[in-house]
Amino acid sequence: MSQQPSTPDPALTTLVGLAAFTELAAFGLLASRSVDAPDLPVRQTLATAAGDALGRQGRLLALVVGPGADGAAEAMAPFDGALTDFDARTTPSTWAEGLLKSVVGLGVAQDLCRELAAGLPDGGAGFAAAVGEPRTDDPATAVLAAAATADDVLSSRMALWGRRVVGEALGLVPVLLAAHAPLAALASHAREGEPDGGATVQAWLVSRLTAEHTRRMDRLGLAA
Amino acid sequence: MSQQPSTPDPALTTLVGLAAFTELAAFGLLASRSVDAPDLPVRQTLATAAGDALGRQGRLLALVVGPGADGAAEAMAPFDGALTDFDARTTPSTWAEGLLKSVVGLGVAQDLCRELAAGLPDGGAGFAAAVGEPRTDDPATAVLAAAATADDVLSSRMALWGRRVVGEALGLVPVLLAAHAPLAALASHAREGEPDGGATVQAWLVSRLTAEHTRRMDRLGLAA
Repeated sequence: MSQQPSTPDPALTTLVGLAAFTELAAFGLLASRSVDAPDLPVRQTLATAAGDALGRQGRLLALVVGPGADGAAEAMAPFDGALTDFDARTTPSTWAEGLLKSVVGLGVAQDLCRELAAGLPDGGAGFAAAVGEPRTDDPATAVLAAAATADDVLSSRMALWGRRVVGEALGLVPVLLAAHAPLAALASHAREGEPDGGATVQAWLVSRLTAEHTRRMDRLGLAA
Repeated sequence: MSQQPSTPDPALTTLVGLAAFTELAAFGLLASRSVDAPDLPVRQTLATAAGDALGRQGRLLALVVGPGADGAAEAMAPFDGALTDFDARTTPSTWAEGLLKSVVGLGVAQDLCRELAAGLPDGGAGFAAAVGEPRTDDPATAVLAAAATADDVLSSRMALWGRRVVGEALGLVPVLLAAHAPLAALASHAREGEPDGGATVQAWLVSRLTAEHTRRMDRLGLAA
């Protein structure tokens, strides 16, 4: 029935579980902001972005399990609840905060998974093919950038909120690596291929994710 | 840029606008019940069902507009706000009520659009190809049927709630036909192809939708 490789790498299975779970979370955040969007074009744009997250999730899961919700849930099960504390600490108080949370939270999660995938035997090529190139023009970013450009007060509030969300997201990284040995091993392998020798694996990883976050906030027109 | 037929039938454009808008609404209802689902398999199942609604919406919109959120929003614009009263009158008080609302509301909307499509010059073949066969085994129905079978009290509450939702949904039909002349014309054309001569167009349409609703409630194991 299933079309996955008969013996997927256990580290790949764990990484796909994390990536699929965070894409499902992104789907929920984007869909929720579609439901209460200010107008029909934004509602449609964010629904489509939510659908894109599901599409990436499906391609990722196909690397390790057959089709259907049961296999998907089994692959994600080790990460069920992994975002509960993060969600409790980053409850948005406005629509724009909710949308920025989805952009920053999903962005950090995707960057983390891409960095870890570099520690796989194939250097992350299969993983990268499933998720596609990182998008620098995603629709949620465009919606937020337009809102921030038009309103200086919103822009500084959003910058503050972005720092809050990224702080909580980066705080999850050591928790995830400590709880899931295959992810820690991937981080170590990924680190081996990199030149900057001094830093610990975790410090190296967080500095990579922070640099990507700064670029993300630049695209949003917000101070990182 | 666009790949749609250069001169879509104006009645098709109106019908696609209605159908696409109700699929977007179904996406929002299903995605919201995914976000607060009781467990990960149901969360995944309902996310996938929401994605399916978006897929149907995309294939429908492709019949009349090019890709992108702007054309989609333009096609749906005549129906923006059409479900506001319906939503206000059917605010669910539990998760199961919210899910049943999506199944019943989307079901009636899909049945309505399919009946109206029969009044198009091609007898609705193009429309039917875009939306696919009516599903009698959709995942949301399976989730609800399992819950209702296990709990008699829930089952009778759900039956009552289903009658409330279908009543409000059927009440929208004359409102939509009165507000959108192309839909009323489609209903009249569809009616001409049918044998039962006595009834008015509206009475005929509502009786067709009621019969389909009864079948839907049977599949859910609920009294219609």
